[in-house]
Amino acid sequence: MTILYAADPEDAEGWIGSIRALDPQLTFATWPDWGDPDAIDFIIVGGRMPGDLSIFQNAKAIQSTWAGVNHLLKGKFPPGVPIARMVDQGLSANMVEYLVYWVLDALRQGRELRAAQREAKWLELPLRWARNFPVGILGLGTLGAATAAKLVELGFPVRGWSRTAKSVAGVESFHGADQLHDFLAPLKLLICLLPLTPETEGVLDAKLFAGLPEGAILVNAGRGGHTNEADLIAALDSGKLAYAVLDVFREEPLPLDHVFWRRKDIVITPHVASITRAGTGAADILENYRRALAGEPLLNPVDPQRGY
Amino acid sequence: MTILYAADPEDAEGWIGSIRALDPQLTFATWPDWGDPDAIDFIIVGGRMPGDLSIFQNAKAIQSTWAGVNHLLKGKFPPGVPIARMVDQGLSANMVEYLVYWVLDALRQGRELRAAQREAKWLELPLRWARNFPVGILGLGTLGAATAAKLVELGFPVRGWSRTAKSVAGVESFHGADQLHDFLAPLKLLICLLPLTPETEGVLDAKLFAGLPEGAILVNAGRGGHTNEADLIAALDSGKLAYAVLDVFREEPLPLDHVFWRRKDIVITPHVASITRAGTGAADILENYRRALAGEPLLNPVDPQRGY
Ligand SMILES: NC(=O)c1ccc[n+]([C@@H]2O[C@H](COP(=O)([O-])OP(=O)(O)OC[C@H]3O[C@@H](n4cnc5c(N)ncnc54)[C@H](OP(=O)(O)O)[C@@H]3O)[C@@H](O)[C@H]2O)c1
Ligand SMILES: NC(=O)c1ccc[n+]([C@@H]2O[C@H](COP(=O)([O-])OP(=O)(O)OC[C@H]3O[C@@H](n4cnc5c(N)ncnc54)[C@H](OP(=O)(O)O)[C@@H]3O)[C@@H](O)[C@H]2O)c1
Repeated sequence: MTILYAADPEDAEGWIGSIRALDPQLTFATWPDWGDPDAIDFIIVGGRMPGDLSIFQNAKAIQSTWAGVNHLLKGKFPPGVPIARMVDQGLSANMVEYLVYWVLDALRQGRELRAAQREAKWLELPLRWARNFPVGILGLGTLGAATAAKLVELGFPVRGWSRTAKSVAGVESFHGADQLHDFLAPLKLLICLLPLTPETEGVLDAKLFAGLPEGAILVNAGRGGHTNEADLIAALDSGKLAYAVLDVFREEPLPLDHVFWRRKDIVITPHVASITRAGTGAADILENYRRALAGEPLLNPVDPQRGY
Repeated sequence: MTILYAADPEDAEGWIGSIRALDPQLTFATWPDWGDPDAIDFIIVGGRMPGDLSIFQNAKAIQSTWAGVNHLLKGKFPPGVPIARMVDQGLSANMVEYLVYWVLDALRQGRELRAAQREAKWLELPLRWARNFPVGILGLGTLGAATAAKLVELGFPVRGWSRTAKSVAGVESFHGADQLHDFLAPLKLLICLLPLTPETEGVLDAKLFAGLPEGAILVNAGRGGHTNEADLIAALDSGKLAYAVLDVFREEPLPLDHVFWRRKDIVITPHVASITRAGTGAADILENYRRALAGEPLLNPVDPQRGY
């Protein structure tokens, strides 16, 4: 009965400490010092796959400390073992803050005002209304729905797009490839909060940008793999997109010589939109450990077939 | 029975049109073509005092299109005539957006991230929690209370300071000079949303800054007259204040040679936090016209003695 902590080493103390604080009886091993692999009944993974997990034949579940698990699903697991991702309140709250921040920056023209100040220019931009500023969210799951709700409260018209039909109060919902174009048509700002899967890889491409109004703004807080980088640059160059705010990149940290760093129309944030914290996530992990041992369905299960 | 429009000339069409759309029977005159002064029974004023209004002896009320009326109260009015200010929903909504925007910019360290990008630096700042980021609001009136409510919803600990004791859900309330110091002590960010009166003139001074923790952030969306400019510069130079966001200035537009333009630690927005719009404000003006003729108390009355 040992939990193997195989997630990010720098967070080991935080996670193990927070889980132990809730149940001091538990035994932990940390990667790669697992001792007898047959004693491991639960594995915690994080920002990268530590190695081949298929040797842990008695593991009842794999628990990710991250919400997005695309980087894990290519790994090797014991056959048939259920996988859970992390969805904690802190994660949602941070993502909502991050996205509300960039939506307000767009609405209130922070970029224009900063440019004006550099020239000592008193720029009385006509004041805009949230209610005339439609925002769209690709991915209306846990994080997308929480963000949509807060934007609705602030008076923005909000549209959401997902795989299956959704009903979120105050949000106009679209789903599937057929409705993507209608969804995009009126947007001033588009947020990507999709999971990265074979279907969503490169979704932010020329075809999608073409569906947006001229001068729209893009915020990608999903995954770097959603961005078709060449198409993004072309859309910025043509003025189709006014600017883009990117929190996620195909390679992270973004390499020093990457062209994105030097574009005035790309705002880079270093994958800081949101993180899970041990303090708020530990209870969910413990609950999933209990469920795994009892053979019950996990909280926040991942469907490896679907990819999220 | 004529309404004299003596507010900002560039907004005349908007205001008169919006009021007429609600009641096409009304007669308007515009400053300075008022014809017979004795026919004027209601006067609309705005961003500056147009001249001596005491000649309009039959005016039953003065209605401001602005929320802050400090600049009007020094003018000459018919004796005893009631004055009303403007409080429309659009005004509140815009102010809330503006202030939530700058609070999130502070929490999410927009300035630090922008500086990092200029050096192509992947700056993984430790993510901060709204709940560890206390925000204080000087002035817990119409705009202050609306802002406080939205910040509470986003998870910030919020404190308010006013002249008289208040009760706003989720907000820790302080009042009067005696409680100012306690109010300031834990704040990461201080918002000024006071009206400008003889008591509040220069309130943002060295004494107040001394009550804040080291490295606090100031946002002044009240009036320029609240800022003691020399004390502000000294507080920034000493590091007492990390930076200031100013929407209002003693002279507007801020003169080109003003030192504020060139400070990296002062963000200038050109008095754009919020404006009243004819579309949403016309109904209140019409209601006050009706009340004035009927001798009833006005909506949003101003107390010239108190100064707001
Ligand atoms: N930048 C950061 O700091 C950060 C932090 C955390 C998470 N994230 C990213 O945010 C993503 C979303 O997280 P979450 O917790 O909200 O996930 P979630 O609850 O699983 O929601 C995913 C949403 O995307 C939709 N979706 C998936 N595939 C789709 C497709 N092919 N077409 C249309 N819609 C599709 C889903 O639709 P259905 O509901 O209809 O299936 C669902 O609405 C994560 O996967 C991760 O990539 C980023
Ligand atoms: N930057 C912009 O674009 C913009 C736009 C609109 C308004 N404003 C500014 O915002 C101000 C506030 O507007 P509002 O509609 O919220 O006004 P309000 O409803 O009259 O509220 C004023 C608040 O300030 C408090 N106060 C006044 N004098 C005080 C003193 N000496 N000590 C402590 N508290 C005092 C009042 O306390 P009590 O309730 O206890 O009396 C009240 O809570 C306006 O006056 C204007 O200067 C700026």
